[in-house]
Amino acid sequence: MAKPKLHIIPLGGVGEIGKNMAVFEYGNNIIVVDCGGMFPEETMPGVDLVIPDVSYLMDKQKKVRAFFITHGHEDHIGALPYILPHFDVPVYSTALTIGLISVKLKEHRLLGTSDLRTIEFGDRIHAGVFDVEFFSVAHSVPDAAGLAIRTPVGLVVHTGDFKIDLTPVDSKPTDIGALARLGTEGVHVLLADSTGVERAGYTPSESTVGPVFDEIIGNAPGRVIVATFASLIARIQQAVDISRKHDRKVAVIGRSMLQNVNMALDLGYLHDPGGVIQPWEKISNLSPNKVTVISTGAQGEPASALSRMANRDHRQIQIRKGDTVVFSSTPIPGNEELVSRNIDNLFKLGANVIYGADARVHVSGHPGREELKMLTSITQPRFMVPVHGEVRHLILHARLAESLGIPPQNILVPENGRVMEFSENSARYSGHVGANNVFVDGLGVGDIGDVVLRDRQKLAQDGVVIAVMTVDQRTGRPLGPPDIVSAGFVDVAGDGIVDGARDQVFKALQHMHASAAAEPMYIQNKARDTLQKYIYQKTKRRPMVFPVVVEV
Amino acid sequence: MAKPKLHIIPLGGVGEIGKNMAVFEYGNNIIVVDCGGMFPEETMPGVDLVIPDVSYLMDKQKKVRAFFITHGHEDHIGALPYILPHFDVPVYSTALTIGLISVKLKEHRLLGTSDLRTIEFGDRIHAGVFDVEFFSVAHSVPDAAGLAIRTPVGLVVHTGDFKIDLTPVDSKPTDIGALARLGTEGVHVLLADSTGVERAGYTPSESTVGPVFDEIIGNAPGRVIVATFASLIARIQQAVDISRKHDRKVAVIGRSMLQNVNMALDLGYLHDPGGVIQPWEKISNLSPNKVTVISTGAQGEPASALSRMANRDHRQIQIRKGDTVVFSSTPIPGNEELVSRNIDNLFKLGANVIYGADARVHVSGHPGREELKMLTSITQPRFMVPVHGEVRHLILHARLAESLGIPPQNILVPENGRVMEFSENSARYSGHVGANNVFVDGLGVGDIGDVVLRDRQKLAQDGVVIAVMTVDQRTGRPLGPPDIVSAGFVDVAGDGIVDGARDQVFKALQHMHASAAAEPMYIQNKARDTLQKYIYQKTKRRPMVFPVVVEV
Repeated sequence: MAKPKLHIIPLGGVGEIGKNMAVFEYGNNIIVVDCGGMFPEETMPGVDLVIPDVSYLMDKQKKVRAFFITHGHEDHIGALPYILPHFDVPVYSTALTIGLISVKLKEHRLLGTSDLRTIEFGDRIHAGVFDVEFFSVAHSVPDAAGLAIRTPVGLVVHTGDFKIDLTPVDSKPTDIGALARLGTEGVHVLLADSTGVERAGYTPSESTVGPVFDEIIGNAPGRVIVATFASLIARIQQAVDISRKHDRKVAVIGRSMLQNVNMALDLGYLHDPGGVIQPWEKISNLSPNKVTVISTGAQGEPASALSRMANRDHRQIQIRKGDTVVFSSTPIPGNEELVSRNIDNLFKLGANVIYGADARVHVSGHPGREELKMLTSITQPRFMVPVHGEVRHLILHARLAESLGIPPQNILVPENGRVMEFSENSARYSGHVGANNVFVDGLGVGDIGDVVLRDRQKLAQDGVVIAVMTVDQRTGRPLGPPDIVSAGFVDVAGDGIVDGARDQVFKALQHMHASAAAEPMYIQNKARDTLQKYIYQKTKRRPMVFPVVVEV
Repeated sequence: MAKPKLHIIPLGGVGEIGKNMAVFEYGNNIIVVDCGGMFPEETMPGVDLVIPDVSYLMDKQKKVRAFFITHGHEDHIGALPYILPHFDVPVYSTALTIGLISVKLKEHRLLGTSDLRTIEFGDRIHAGVFDVEFFSVAHSVPDAAGLAIRTPVGLVVHTGDFKIDLTPVDSKPTDIGALARLGTEGVHVLLADSTGVERAGYTPSESTVGPVFDEIIGNAPGRVIVATFASLIARIQQAVDISRKHDRKVAVIGRSMLQNVNMALDLGYLHDPGGVIQPWEKISNLSPNKVTVISTGAQGEPASALSRMANRDHRQIQIRKGDTVVFSSTPIPGNEELVSRNIDNLFKLGANVIYGADARVHVSGHPGREELKMLTSITQPRFMVPVHGEVRHLILHARLAESLGIPPQNILVPENGRVMEFSENSARYSGHVGANNVFVDGLGVGDIGDVVLRDRQKLAQDGVVIAVMTVDQRTGRPLGPPDIVSAGFVDVAGDGIVDGARDQVFKALQHMHASAAAEPMYIQNKARDTLQKYIYQKTKRRPMVFPVVVEV
């Protein structure tokens, strides 16, 4: 029997490749790296979450040995509640990541039945033929890891999401020593984060935000409200430390922010030596220049604390003149309008709002081009797979790797569901497995697909028109004009269009051939055609039309 | 009788203030500046265009003396076909702007009945008590104008959209001499473009794009496809000139691009001395490095030429390895995803794609903070009204003006529909007029409103469920289980939810009190409640539910 080869299969990620999940398969051994969900795109109305398609794994449940999670962001852990129950295997990650996973599984009442195992950096986990070592990387959440996966064909290094930040404030810097050691050992395949490849140079360190916060918080005449990601503990730490320096107390507002801050304090990832963090009730009466608020809502999420403040709808905090609001974040694609609206509303309420790239109150968690060059130079991979990013990022990253001397034929640009096959001497594409988007909508997982989404888009464009026709069951002749109801089509009065449509349909049905009129299906089609044609001619719109025929 | 005061009323502009239209009123004299439309926001599905609400002017048609148009962009001329027919007045603007307006009115068969008048810079038009002088400003379309409006209370300067570009390539630079002359005359009120106020420093000149084009076009191994705005004649001129320099011919692709290039050539705004511009058919067989294509689609518009190329759906041009595609544009808010998808698809097809701020292939048409300071310093206005921009831009611009010594009480931050009243000595807000968004959808203008849009959003979220119940007309008892149809709700099989819903409704109707069952309205309500409750419980979704009761 031929020696098996190593298959690496990226799965999931709405536009991004290999972000949410990567499958490693060698003979009867499968391990899964990450299990995340993505927010839906504009073309997916009503969808709550998009998760990877694991149909390929469903036939091979017995072969799956373990899940390894690189870090605790939603796009790397968010699908666990939907996917983990299908696999009776342990989940390995670092302490904070396991903490974040626990919260999520608890919400889905899955904590008791899940086998979560906390590792330390440097630990090596055996899973079938695979041997997985975690090494630390800096990213925009503490305790992020890269993976060194020893396989029968050679060593695979998967960076996870990372940046090369040597002063990351809260967490360990990216372990360049480990990367160098792995490089010396001989990296067969490097999978590396491509998200930041459009950015020239180095991504600024997390610690560059501190002096900017210092200036803002030190000079603010009143309250300072800092909005950022709930998992960006380093940012929260800096806001806390600088508030302490300026003799301010800090209130934490927003459910996910409170949850994460409490967990980070408990687990020792966030430090509050002076007891600066206080419940809002205890500090709301302090002089405004003694108060900092750390809040959710940096992405304009409509139900978040900051959005409610911007809309004068927050239970506890009313924005007023003299407040300073800091958006310590960059809007993720699709959220720009929501964020802009909040900024506008906060300005209207009299706040000073600090936002945007020029303000230097945010840095990315992903590496710029010089960092990617450094990674490749240190690890000296034989084969290279740019991952995490949209097609343009992967291709730019592949070109960057080429410029560093990796031969083009040794660089595989992945696609979700496309199998990459590695032997000790070769790398090639080797077919596809299922990799559709699986939509979570309410309680449904995978019960809506492209047809439903297309119908939703169509309904959104021009609405729906329903015509109910009562016909004589023997002759098929209408017993009266149809009833017409609509939604999302025209305003109630409707300019006489609804009346006109009713007349048209009635007339059309009266004049049908007797033979056709005997068939409810023909009546339905006639009514639909008549309605669509009339409505389009009068309005140039195409609502969804439902003709209902009742035979009496 | 008291002396009248000058009223300035900004109207329209989805999020932006005073962008699409500004009304100037003094006693029985009204003039209108600009008449534009905006693209709908995400919350306005199915809407084609949003135009200003001119209900305030409809009672005063006789008082309106003229429309003055600052430049030929959609957001300043796009509403003319819908609004101009209500007013029997002349429209004044510069030659190219009148050309662009003519194309638009012709499409709507309104050209013959419109009174368009071309002016030269420096001309002064009398319209009632108003005296309107056009002066040249640089912007991202040729022939853009600012207006000096002499009124009984003093001189009002309206910049229109502008930047201070002293080497604008195609058009006249912003007339700083005129601004200085007006400043000396004494500017009573300055209305100034705030769009670019978030940008520090000066906006780079249009001519900075030339050297970048030179490098790209000079070094490209194959065809170069430059996508930009069809009205950005200066950009097109530079692509043409540099192609000529490198011995390339230029094909123009895309309906609006062809239309504008032809008009600009005819009117002398675009120059092609060497006859470089050729029909595609004539140059498609040249060596690829002899070909430049100038195309529509820089904003990812789905039907545009470049989008079709990216989707391998263009009738004439197939993208191939070696092609270089230049996005000479910035995605306008809301278009980011569309543009990204095109970039990804072009990369996939093997093209080299040049895009983004780092590539320096685009400059803005609006002034940065230093230019705004210069404008204010030169014109020395007594009162200041920041316009054109969202609330945050206006407030930042107001603060900038304050920093230049304009007293805060002399700065009015406008809102659409809010009347600003000026006398010779004072400025104040003075009530509101109607300023709703008016939606154009197909042939309908203003026939859909917020209710329709909310229904569309709801339909998009969870779809629609229709239940048709036949009941005994005497007893109200159901004659059988209801028929249920749905769209945008669940996939056909639907996990038994539709079957379950049918059973639930049937049971509920069978068990209704006899008195209630006698009322079709009660039957309807019972069915709706039962369906909504059952569906939400089973799926956590809330489709729109239409119960239809037919009595037999």
